[in-house]
Amino acid sequence: MLKLYIHPFSVPALTTEMTAHAVGAKFERIIVDLQNGEQRSESYQAINPKGKVPALVDGDHVICESLTIQRYLARKLGSDLFPEDILGQARVEEWMDYAVQHVRAPMSRIQFNKIVAPMLGQPVDENSIKVGEHLLAQNLPPIDKQLSQSEFLTGNTLSLADITLLAALDPVELLQFDLKEFPYLTRWRQALRERDFYQNVHTHFGAELGL
Amino acid sequence: MLKLYIHPFSVPALTTEMTAHAVGAKFERIIVDLQNGEQRSESYQAINPKGKVPALVDGDHVICESLTIQRYLARKLGSDLFPEDILGQARVEEWMDYAVQHVRAPMSRIQFNKIVAPMLGQPVDENSIKVGEHLLAQNLPPIDKQLSQSEFLTGNTLSLADITLLAALDPVELLQFDLKEFPYLTRWRQALRERDFYQNVHTHFGAELGL
Repeated sequence: MLKLYIHPFSVPALTTEMTAHAVGAKFERIIVDLQNGEQRSESYQAINPKGKVPALVDGDHVICESLTIQRYLARKLGSDLFPEDILGQARVEEWMDYAVQHVRAPMSRIQFNKIVAPMLGQPVDENSIKVGEHLLAQNLPPIDKQLSQSEFLTGNTLSLADITLLAALDPVELLQFDLKEFPYLTRWRQALRERDFYQNVHTHFGAELGL
Repeated sequence: MLKLYIHPFSVPALTTEMTAHAVGAKFERIIVDLQNGEQRSESYQAINPKGKVPALVDGDHVICESLTIQRYLARKLGSDLFPEDILGQARVEEWMDYAVQHVRAPMSRIQFNKIVAPMLGQPVDENSIKVGEHLLAQNLPPIDKQLSQSEFLTGNTLSLADITLLAALDPVELLQFDLKEFPYLTRWRQALRERDFYQNVHTHFGAELGL
């Protein structure tokens, strides 16, 4: 059986866990204790020498990096969440990359400084929070526009890209980032959070940590 | 003919330009004047509503996001820089994602604060430079280790991932970031910079801007 090494506070890990459910993969979910540095332990480095989560173990093979794991799972399970034609693949990949580069990265700055740094007793960089909020204000409008034109990011059917974006936005409530300016994005998000692939992971971001 | 919209100071754009040469694409290279905000102009937004470079125009289709463009070009031209089997693709994608998430992103923080912010008269965030340098110190050793074991990132043949990483590291001299602790990475980089796909783009990062 596939083994997926994750942590419930890692957005890249959540992305792969939701995807594994969405494509119907059977997998064992193993939590790596990031808070106590298990990712740097000898036993975890033997699995992923880069010392990061998520990691997917499929027999003798280890696949890392969340977008790569998403596509690997979809291809392996023959899921229609990732198309087979060159242009269809490009459309899905483009929104996956956009979600990671232009939404997840600024969200991650805010998450680190509002939640992780205080947890670890590290200094909070207020400027980094401001930069993150500025980038989100710039990068979310094209998404809202797209979702005003089609039910999902790449058209009328769900794709891997929707899952990438859903996970990227998962911490918004915890980070007190308001999406009310983005009505189509909000509607899309509400609908997707009711789906099994989301509910099988959690009810909301941070639930596993009692937040 | 394919049209590639780029800027010589955009690492994502350089990634796609090097890739276009490496896969043997014929393309017109169009510079978007980022310094004067052309990416926000009506005419450019008609091409890429997200207002970013690079963008690849192929007939009626516009493909954005650098990794997506890399794979689109390789698939379209039938290049062996991107394999056809599921596991081979995962290996290449994994290193492409790693190069972007864990090398290009911290490099970009340093580039913004050391070069772009002073150019635009914006405040320099010294802490962000430190975070970038810290992340590089953490994320480059696994690459050096990989390149001690194989000539290229994914084995004994060049792949798209090598081009992604080569472009990500292109600004190191300009940013005075020293790679001497990473001998295998340095050797790999020197060899790749002599290749036509690099030399066809420029002699070094910033050359087009007289730097």
